[in-house]
Amino acid sequence: MPINKQWHLISRPTGDLKPENFEIRESVVRDLGANEFLIRTIYLSLDPTLRLWAREQDSYMPSVRLGDVMRGFTMGVVEKSNNLQYPIGAIVTGVFGWEEYSISDGSGIVTRVEMDPRLPLTARFGLFEHIGLTAYFGIVDLLRPKFGETMVVSGAAGAVGSIAVQIGKILGCRVVAIAGSEEKCAWLKNELGADAVINYKKQPLKTALREACPNGIDTFFDNVGGETLEAVLDQINMKARIAMCGAISQYGTDEKPYAPPNIYNLLMKRAKIEGFIVLDYAADARWWAIAHDDMTQWFLQGRMKYRLDIVEGLQNAPSALDKLFRGTNTGKLLIKVSDEPVVA
Amino acid sequence: MPINKQWHLISRPTGDLKPENFEIRESVVRDLGANEFLIRTIYLSLDPTLRLWAREQDSYMPSVRLGDVMRGFTMGVVEKSNNLQYPIGAIVTGVFGWEEYSISDGSGIVTRVEMDPRLPLTARFGLFEHIGLTAYFGIVDLLRPKFGETMVVSGAAGAVGSIAVQIGKILGCRVVAIAGSEEKCAWLKNELGADAVINYKKQPLKTALREACPNGIDTFFDNVGGETLEAVLDQINMKARIAMCGAISQYGTDEKPYAPPNIYNLLMKRAKIEGFIVLDYAADARWWAIAHDDMTQWFLQGRMKYRLDIVEGLQNAPSALDKLFRGTNTGKLLIKVSDEPVVA
Repeated sequence: MPINKQWHLISRPTGDLKPENFEIRESVVRDLGANEFLIRTIYLSLDPTLRLWAREQDSYMPSVRLGDVMRGFTMGVVEKSNNLQYPIGAIVTGVFGWEEYSISDGSGIVTRVEMDPRLPLTARFGLFEHIGLTAYFGIVDLLRPKFGETMVVSGAAGAVGSIAVQIGKILGCRVVAIAGSEEKCAWLKNELGADAVINYKKQPLKTALREACPNGIDTFFDNVGGETLEAVLDQINMKARIAMCGAISQYGTDEKPYAPPNIYNLLMKRAKIEGFIVLDYAADARWWAIAHDDMTQWFLQGRMKYRLDIVEGLQNAPSALDKLFRGTNTGKLLIKVSDEPVVA
Repeated sequence: MPINKQWHLISRPTGDLKPENFEIRESVVRDLGANEFLIRTIYLSLDPTLRLWAREQDSYMPSVRLGDVMRGFTMGVVEKSNNLQYPIGAIVTGVFGWEEYSISDGSGIVTRVEMDPRLPLTARFGLFEHIGLTAYFGIVDLLRPKFGETMVVSGAAGAVGSIAVQIGKILGCRVVAIAGSEEKCAWLKNELGADAVINYKKQPLKTALREACPNGIDTFFDNVGGETLEAVLDQINMKARIAMCGAISQYGTDEKPYAPPNIYNLLMKRAKIEGFIVLDYAADARWWAIAHDDMTQWFLQGRMKYRLDIVEGLQNAPSALDKLFRGTNTGKLLIKVSDEPVVA
């Protein structure tokens, strides 16, 4: 069996996750048991949720224990197999580790990928899986926008947010995108078609929202929480819906989280806030497939774009986190761990 | 036309509403126009929501303007009429004023009451309208409890809360009731069948909830907000549902409202908080009738109880508020403004 390189979580972050929280170790991969298969990691996805997983307290999943291999969303190819459902050559995505090789008996797998010659393999992490389908289900299942309604997206230039903006447009909403730089705002407006953009670092959010949403806010796809959520709650319409996808403003802090004091506007406006995790939807194979088909069609019709920021080499995973948490990545941040298989 | 006595709101409350915020004035009722009818008020309902209506800022309804007649839920009998839908003798409920007589052309009306010889007229404000049907729709539409789940009710000894507790039991939940006195807790447990009761004035809420909810919390009917909501959010289960019916802990304060910093648990638990107002449901005549039938059946089967605390005389309305806001009323607080019609 091959040698495995694995990044272990060796200390808890104070504030952001940093390279010193990790240590790389090598070991020989153990032999496969019954039903098990060996996955060679091709891509490792770096996501804001890593901060939640590395905390002491459990989140929507148990926390990664100190000393364990760091958890991550990965894509890989099966290289050895005792499992008929996952034969050699199968491409899979799943929740595995920051490592060159993973072993599974099917657990941890999110999707066995059907290769589609019209889509690059990286589209899995640009359009689908925990990125594109997070946006899809948050909007389609929770927000349920009506044509002509106003949808606000925070963290709009992020991997999930930028897909949310485009789905909002496809569904006929007036989409207002909040991001943290002029470059991001220009991209959202000029390339992705946002109707209005707000650079929250330059503009007071409440005023800017009031100008950008003259008819109030009907739906909000929130990646940020905190004061962004507060500004939106101030201006929601009757029966408004808020999908709590993330709360990145609250992840890096070791202080008490900031909750919006105007939460009681939910009562005044008969509105709702609902949290969700895309992995819950993966259990519904039929809906998962419908989402995949919709997203594929929109992409092939040229109505859906994504950007990637690919860093070469598993050894660079911890240092690449800095891009993520400072928001300097220029697209969905992926670590390329090994080469894609050559399609015959 | 008769002389009308009306309580006017003459100043904004600082903290609770008090008698000095009101002034009684007399005037002759004006003549009826086309389609209008004259309602003699029989009962005026005093409710926590009055605090919201009397504030400077609008809530789920516009604020009552200074100098205007104070708004209230009332029940009355039509005494003169130019409207075929509301003939003389019809009993109606609606959102009208703190007054002996109201004029309507149909607007403001919530229900034209069909007299039911099996139910006293006061049951309208014990079991139905903005009391019982608030509990009904909050539970049936928003919480959607499953048999065997744990439901927590705050403000459980209140008019709405006590009905919510009983509906929870009828639907097969383990119901945990939070109230503010030993007498109320005893009533909830011994008379209304709550599985566990918590006197929040005597017990630390989080610990008491943990003991009372060994399987966590699936649904929460919240009348209170603030720290009560925080304690519940700490212990919600996956896919928990919270109906925000009121936030009485936050109404009396002129300070910034207290929002639970653990609001982000909604994400971790894929849970939701949703605000609602019963009047929205009154627009759906079919569902309103179903709710009325369910509640009537449950009452006639002896599975639903309510208590009334009736104060005689419109002149005593402002001073009776003290009971409401200190929680010393011993049932749904009503002002008896005039006599019920004698049924032939």
